[in-house]
Amino acid sequence: MSIYNQIKMKKVVLAFSGGLDTSFCCIYLTKDLGLEVHSVVVNTGGFSDEELKTIEARAYELGVKSHTAIDETEDYYRDTIKYLIFGNVLKNATYPLSVSAERVCQATAIANYAKKIGAECVAHGSTGAGNDQVRFDMIFHTLIPGVEIITPIRDLKLSREAEIEYLNSHGVEYSAEKAKYSINKGLWGTSVGGAETLTSNQYLPESAWPTPITSSEVRQITIDFEKGEPVALNGEKIGAVSVIQQLQALAQPYGIGRDMHVGDTIIGIKGRVGFEAAASLILVKAHHTLEKHTLTKWQLSWKDQIAAFYGNWMHEGQMHDPVMRDIEAFLSSSQDTVTGRVIVELHPHRFVVIGIESEHDLMSNKFGTYGEMNAGYTGDDVKGFSKIFGNQTIIWHKVNDKG
Amino acid sequence: MSIYNQIKMKKVVLAFSGGLDTSFCCIYLTKDLGLEVHSVVVNTGGFSDEELKTIEARAYELGVKSHTAIDETEDYYRDTIKYLIFGNVLKNATYPLSVSAERVCQATAIANYAKKIGAECVAHGSTGAGNDQVRFDMIFHTLIPGVEIITPIRDLKLSREAEIEYLNSHGVEYSAEKAKYSINKGLWGTSVGGAETLTSNQYLPESAWPTPITSSEVRQITIDFEKGEPVALNGEKIGAVSVIQQLQALAQPYGIGRDMHVGDTIIGIKGRVGFEAAASLILVKAHHTLEKHTLTKWQLSWKDQIAAFYGNWMHEGQMHDPVMRDIEAFLSSSQDTVTGRVIVELHPHRFVVIGIESEHDLMSNKFGTYGEMNAGYTGDDVKGFSKIFGNQTIIWHKVNDKG
Amino acid sequence: MSIYNQIKMKKVVLAFSGGLDTSFCCIYLTKDLGLEVHSVVVNTGGFSDEELKTIEARAYELGVKSHTAIDETEDYYRDTIKYLIFGNVLKNATYPLSVSAERVCQATAIANYAKKIGAECVAHGSTGAGNDQVRFDMIFHTLIPGVEIITPIRDLKLSREAEIEYLNSHGVEYSAEKAKYSINKGLWGTSVGGAETLTSNQYLPESAWPTPITSSEVRQITIDFEKGEPVALNGEKIGAVSVIQQLQALAQPYGIGRDMHVGDTIIGIKGRVGFEAAASLILVKAHHTLEKHTLTKWQLSWKDQIAAFYGNWMHEGQMHDPVMRDIEAFLSSSQDTVTGRVIVELHPHRFVVIGIESEHDLMSNKFGTYGEMNAGYTGDDVKGFSKIFGNQTIIWHKVNDKG
Amino acid sequence: MSIYNQIKMKKVVLAFSGGLDTSFCCIYLTKDLGLEVHSVVVNTGGFSDEELKTIEARAYELGVKSHTAIDETEDYYRDTIKYLIFGNVLKNATYPLSVSAERVCQATAIANYAKKIGAECVAHGSTGAGNDQVRFDMIFHTLIPGVEIITPIRDLKLSREAEIEYLNSHGVEYSAEKAKYSINKGLWGTSVGGAETLTSNQYLPESAWPTPITSSEVRQITIDFEKGEPVALNGEKIGAVSVIQQLQALAQPYGIGRDMHVGDTIIGIKGRVGFEAAASLILVKAHHTLEKHTLTKWQLSWKDQIAAFYGNWMHEGQMHDPVMRDIEAFLSSSQDTVTGRVIVELHPHRFVVIGIESEHDLMSNKFGTYGEMNAGYTGDDVKGFSKIFGNQTIIWHKVNDKG
Repeated sequence: MSIYNQIKMKKVVLAFSGGLDTSFCCIYLTKDLGLEVHSVVVNTGGFSDEELKTIEARAYELGVKSHTAIDETEDYYRDTIKYLIFGNVLKNATYPLSVSAERVCQATAIANYAKKIGAECVAHGSTGAGNDQVRFDMIFHTLIPGVEIITPIRDLKLSREAEIEYLNSHGVEYSAEKAKYSINKGLWGTSVGGAETLTSNQYLPESAWPTPITSSEVRQITIDFEKGEPVALNGEKIGAVSVIQQLQALAQPYGIGRDMHVGDTIIGIKGRVGFEAAASLILVKAHHTLEKHTLTKWQLSWKDQIAAFYGNWMHEGQMHDPVMRDIEAFLSSSQDTVTGRVIVELHPHRFVVIGIESEHDLMSNKFGTYGEMNAGYTGDDVKGFSKIFGNQTIIWHKVNDKG
Repeated sequence: MSIYNQIKMKKVVLAFSGGLDTSFCCIYLTKDLGLEVHSVVVNTGGFSDEELKTIEARAYELGVKSHTAIDETEDYYRDTIKYLIFGNVLKNATYPLSVSAERVCQATAIANYAKKIGAECVAHGSTGAGNDQVRFDMIFHTLIPGVEIITPIRDLKLSREAEIEYLNSHGVEYSAEKAKYSINKGLWGTSVGGAETLTSNQYLPESAWPTPITSSEVRQITIDFEKGEPVALNGEKIGAVSVIQQLQALAQPYGIGRDMHVGDTIIGIKGRVGFEAAASLILVKAHHTLEKHTLTKWQLSWKDQIAAFYGNWMHEGQMHDPVMRDIEAFLSSSQDTVTGRVIVELHPHRFVVIGIESEHDLMSNKFGTYGEMNAGYTGDDVKGFSKIFGNQTIIWHKVNDKG
Repeated sequence: MSIYNQIKMKKVVLAFSGGLDTSFCCIYLTKDLGLEVHSVVVNTGGFSDEELKTIEARAYELGVKSHTAIDETEDYYRDTIKYLIFGNVLKNATYPLSVSAERVCQATAIANYAKKIGAECVAHGSTGAGNDQVRFDMIFHTLIPGVEIITPIRDLKLSREAEIEYLNSHGVEYSAEKAKYSINKGLWGTSVGGAETLTSNQYLPESAWPTPITSSEVRQITIDFEKGEPVALNGEKIGAVSVIQQLQALAQPYGIGRDMHVGDTIIGIKGRVGFEAAASLILVKAHHTLEKHTLTKWQLSWKDQIAAFYGNWMHEGQMHDPVMRDIEAFLSSSQDTVTGRVIVELHPHRFVVIGIESEHDLMSNKFGTYGEMNAGYTGDDVKGFSKIFGNQTIIWHKVNDKG
Repeated sequence: MSIYNQIKMKKVVLAFSGGLDTSFCCIYLTKDLGLEVHSVVVNTGGFSDEELKTIEARAYELGVKSHTAIDETEDYYRDTIKYLIFGNVLKNATYPLSVSAERVCQATAIANYAKKIGAECVAHGSTGAGNDQVRFDMIFHTLIPGVEIITPIRDLKLSREAEIEYLNSHGVEYSAEKAKYSINKGLWGTSVGGAETLTSNQYLPESAWPTPITSSEVRQITIDFEKGEPVALNGEKIGAVSVIQQLQALAQPYGIGRDMHVGDTIIGIKGRVGFEAAASLILVKAHHTLEKHTLTKWQLSWKDQIAAFYGNWMHEGQMHDPVMRDIEAFLSSSQDTVTGRVIVELHPHRFVVIGIESEHDLMSNKFGTYGEMNAGYTGDDVKGFSKIFGNQTIIWHKVNDKG
């Protein structure tokens, strides 16, 4: 059955989630390929302690040699999410890249673990039809070149039923009931795929959203940013990861930050996904508003251009291209004055950014109030400005207009 | 009193709205400067017939030689709004440029009118503290070079009280009660300025919004686009201007499309404004969603970059720079396949884009369903792709990584 | 020997140049695969009539069923080179994309021919180590989906010696002497690869350049452009293709336009190449100079940005992405006023753009001479301009500077 | 005569060069305006010790209270030129911004000096017709807000003859012979204006170039870069400023780096200038070549985009906009691997970049030689790549092509 039968008794690190595909991989790698399986689950903020315990138990039940849970939540924020906030990144003005960002972080952690334990192989459960295979493959090729990549699901092209039968035949129970939606939960949002997301014209029903709507009371909150990073919620300085987690816990029950996105996959087809990401959407708009008060026109303009690329290139799994470090240097520099408080009001299904307070606010009426005359310049100055500012276009029309 | 007293009995075209500033100008230009005043109101979709009649009566009451109402609504759509839709333009991801776009259209119409009637002067009521003065000045310098620009309010720096006293002294009644907010209504949205907009941390109260919320029933509508232009509402083919107007009438009573924006004025200070623009916000998101299904990745990416510049440059009054024609050529070309129906659901304070239907939908499952294998390529193809797609980064790390 | 032996007596269109690789393909496709070979040579301006006759004779000698020469020179100019001129495209400020542009044109012509004669297969002689395979593959997949692509050289990985032996064994003479350099000649320049180009630190010797230096007399010429297209040489209106060809014949013997370029291949490795392209280099700089006199600042700026992408994306074989049509629309629009005469002086190894003459010249001293005062505006206007133009930065420093 | 006569016995810092305009200012500020003049000459590498002594003597002869020479050469390199090298900045692919960069540095130094000595006024000799007035004005408004800016030449609009007469009438000799060309020399190149530069179609004659051509022997040199900075010439580690100066001394006598540029001034008119800048041109191309070997495709691409803006915005005097710091952070980050040796060959009127040597060279044949198969991937990998890389365009054509 195996196309890998030249590999014997080698160490393989398996990216493990406890689902059907990676459960199949556990048995297959051990039994059919005769490998020593070291399963790893990388937590990017989506798993509770309990879920991690269940996953561990499952791994050992499936016969792994060792199982490890790596907590990358802080690293994930520091290396990735932080820059998505700095850049106000919403792919195609919509999607906070909840899943894309996470995969890069997970693949990197797994590669580092494989290097650490000296594994000869690394395995992931991706199919041949999505983005994740490309992200995992590329990052493994980059960070652990020479380590063989094994992808049983992609290679064997088994149906779900065949996988379940294989598991059962090896004494592992697996319920044939398929969840209608596949859910992926992480620090930067939860994605929902299935049924309606496979069409272009249907929307997810209420029941498909992981977090039911249980909050309805209008409520004002504040978020404090320091050099672009969210550091406090309602005045309590708890650090960025906790701000994200507590804000999500507070705002998601309002149904905030739900939407559907259709976008370009790495492999050229269009993919559609639903997501709920209250914290991400609120933080991005709050941060952007603070920036609009504190950055200059060209800072805002260039941030938009390079951050859009940054988000797309991360989405395509290219986080280890050194251009990403260069962009991060730009983004970090730009946050020097992005310090202040943003006031946000939560409503069912939506939020309103009320306003901001900042020592760096360029709208200070010390320097001129829009619509009212001020000390800095005169109407005559503006007359001169208009003449010179329009000079090239004026000349162009003198030269080129007929009649 | 006058700094213009060398000008005698010349024709002046006055951009007239019927408000305090331009009423003052009427008298001042006639009586103090001895000019022959030809007032013009340019309708960009914001005035009803009744309002236009009131403005006309007012103009003659103030002693103008002639008054003309120019309807630029269709031209405004064709020359400006159309491209804002093609470009999904929301300044800083927020503001549909409701006012900026309009001023350019108005200034151009007034310049053409002044040329037509052979006016030696043109006047506008702008103060010395906002964007509009620059837009009017530049466009007049460009389109009617040599025609003298007279700006009494900017030059005389009169207080509101002084203007009223002046009007009264010339037998014109004017109520001293100032509206708390100044409202500007046009085809592409209504702006609201005053009180809270002069602060950074306060939001407009319910009473400040021009359109009260009177609709609450959830309702699905459809918008049909042809080559990027909205042509039908709920299946009825009524043309783009009517789609905008009817959609606005339908959706604004839900309170959709309200927000506040702080942005960079042409004169370097930050300005804050409230706006309600249900039709604009719905059309931009509906159009963008249709594009996400029908355009390629790089079409979407380049459209974003050049459309952001287009919006900013229009905002700064530079609509007559020939680069704007070049960008319009790009945007028009990109709309070739942006034809289809978008389904939208209206809710109080928000709307949801349900989905799209289009013959040009690239998500057609004929070519591969995201997450499921398909006939177009194999897992081995993707393996090869991942290797080559990541090749440069892989090489970079081989060359540069230590250890 | 064959991996294709399931294919019998089918029509295959072979991209044929008469070189070793495609000669091998002729025999192999006929004899080993039993296909009916229809060879095609696409002339993009690099072949003389005599060379075309030699290639045809060779093809029939190798047993093809039919041979066709397609002259794409005019199409190549109209669909590709024209836009490289409009965009002043020099990849990484160096390389006029001589080969890249040509391959796209050739692949497209071959695809259309295969469609026309109803071929079931199409073959090209690319190895597995360069850009061309990707360009041919992608364009065939795009324009003739379903037609099988056969690439014997890539698949069989034969050495040069093995290919020669195979040819000899089939009664075809082939000299074992390998040219030290491989030369590719087309309308937009000639590339030179081999020996020094495989190093990073060596330069091609004099003997490697295809055109020896035989001209040394300093000479002035003129090139007339109409809407961006070169239409006349020395005042004689001969059309763009002839301008390019005659300019190349005139200037290459001076040694103008020789350089080496290292760049990013589609497959992620760096590739180095020598080229001589006198006409391309002269036309790009002449055209750019004319544009600097006739376009506005932002036209020049945006042209640079999108043309750089256009060149790169064409280089990567993506000419059929519709974004390329959108960019072409932008570029065409921008050329509206790029009409005039450019004076160029030819010297051994270099040329000098002396200046330009154009009715659209924005430097006309009617509108102000740089460095001298003029009627359009006053020193006071500029004082006002400086204050407002710098206003945001002035405010930023007031807000943020300490001390 | 004076419009400034309200100003009495105040300290003024005068940007002084010793030429006619600033000599006039010395007398005028002292005698007519009754100010205490503190003249400053800022050396950005263009003045020899002897020239500085002459300028000082001249200043005291003209009656200044104090004269100071500030050497900004090292700061100029560190704060400005370094980034022009990192960015390979040639405005419109031609001009190294020799003068633009310098003015920003000079204005900043003068502002700092005025602050240091507590001057109430600052004066510059700019006319009302060029870029420099805007640069000086803006930087003074930004760095020393509140300090009055006095610009006698711009305000009084005196002719050259009137200035000379004024000087003579105050007992100062000034020859009426006007140099045909005005020359500005600095570390990053020398500009030449006058006569032919005021036309569009004439070129500077041999006699106009400041450095006569005296070298003709072909010569190879090497330049070593460390993280993007030129640190050694011909293997001798002398630091960046000395590399620039010695390279200029060596290469300018070959006539290298001469050209003419027409560009957009800040005030909207086109301006034409000649320049000789051998060191700048050589360093930019040498550095760029090293980058093409050591940076990834997207690093090169983004560097081009943001560096073009950086150069333009610097040219427009906006160096103190914080976006410039953000761009510098990007550029600095990108230079991490730009270390190596570049070999350059000098010829009369031109130079050739022979090649590079670097530990960071991505063209290392360890990772695949262009045109030859290699260990990293197979022809099958590329087949898969081509399919997926072209997938979206393939789908687009399936959906949208008719017939």
